[in-house]
Amino acid sequence: METATSDTNPRSLIASDRVIGTDVRRPDGERVGTIERLMLDKKSGRVAYAVMSFGGFLGLGEGYHTLPWSVLRFEPELDAYVVDITEAQLRDAPPRSPEGTDPSQDRDWEEHVHRYYNATPYWGI
Amino acid sequence: METATSDTNPRSLIASDRVIGTDVRRPDGERVGTIERLMLDKKSGRVAYAVMSFGGFLGLGEGYHTLPWSVLRFEPELDAYVVDITEAQLRDAPPRSPEGTDPSQDRDWEEHVHRYYNATPYWGI
Repeated sequence: METATSDTNPRSLIASDRVIGTDVRRPDGERVGTIERLMLDKKSGRVAYAVMSFGGFLGLGEGYHTLPWSVLRFEPELDAYVVDITEAQLRDAPPRSPEGTDPSQDRDWEEHVHRYYNATPYWGI
Repeated sequence: METATSDTNPRSLIASDRVIGTDVRRPDGERVGTIERLMLDKKSGRVAYAVMSFGGFLGLGEGYHTLPWSVLRFEPELDAYVVDITEAQLRDAPPRSPEGTDPSQDRDWEEHVHRYYNATPYWGI
């Protein structure tokens, strides 16, 4: 029996203010940071990156990472986004400034960060 | 000669906090509202809608409209998003609640609102 509000609805929306401020955790539940902002690709209307702030997690100092949106998976039971990357990957991840400077102006950096996280480039899909 | 920071770069990003709170204007510059939040399609990572608040513009009462993202065009010289729709279209536009209830659960409403604004459905591209 089909219901209009089924969780299997392939089209399911989330409000930006439900995303921003949400925790980012590893698959084991460990909190690694918080989503500060999204970076949108103007041309396609696609979310390209999430800028994650961290501080005090994993012994890392305060800072920001720009994560390809496709590596984040929302887990309702954790009320968090989960990134399936190792602690070592997070430690050595390419850092970005908190201002969210447009990374699309630096194609080499974009290609590097997508390879780093083994993420599908948002401009190729 | 190619420059890495050229404005013609086809990939150009904008931060979500640069979008939220930004004015929405008509092509003649008249302000009609402010972007309150974005509604993201979880599956595709695409921005599906912008929720616009209005109040006191065009003699309309306070309220919210959910606009298909594809009808909004950022105009740097106005520092605003421009919607090329008439005052009559805005007056009669399908209203939505301020809470940004997930409209993807109501397929008829989604099809109606995209037809209303003559917008390309985000789920079909």
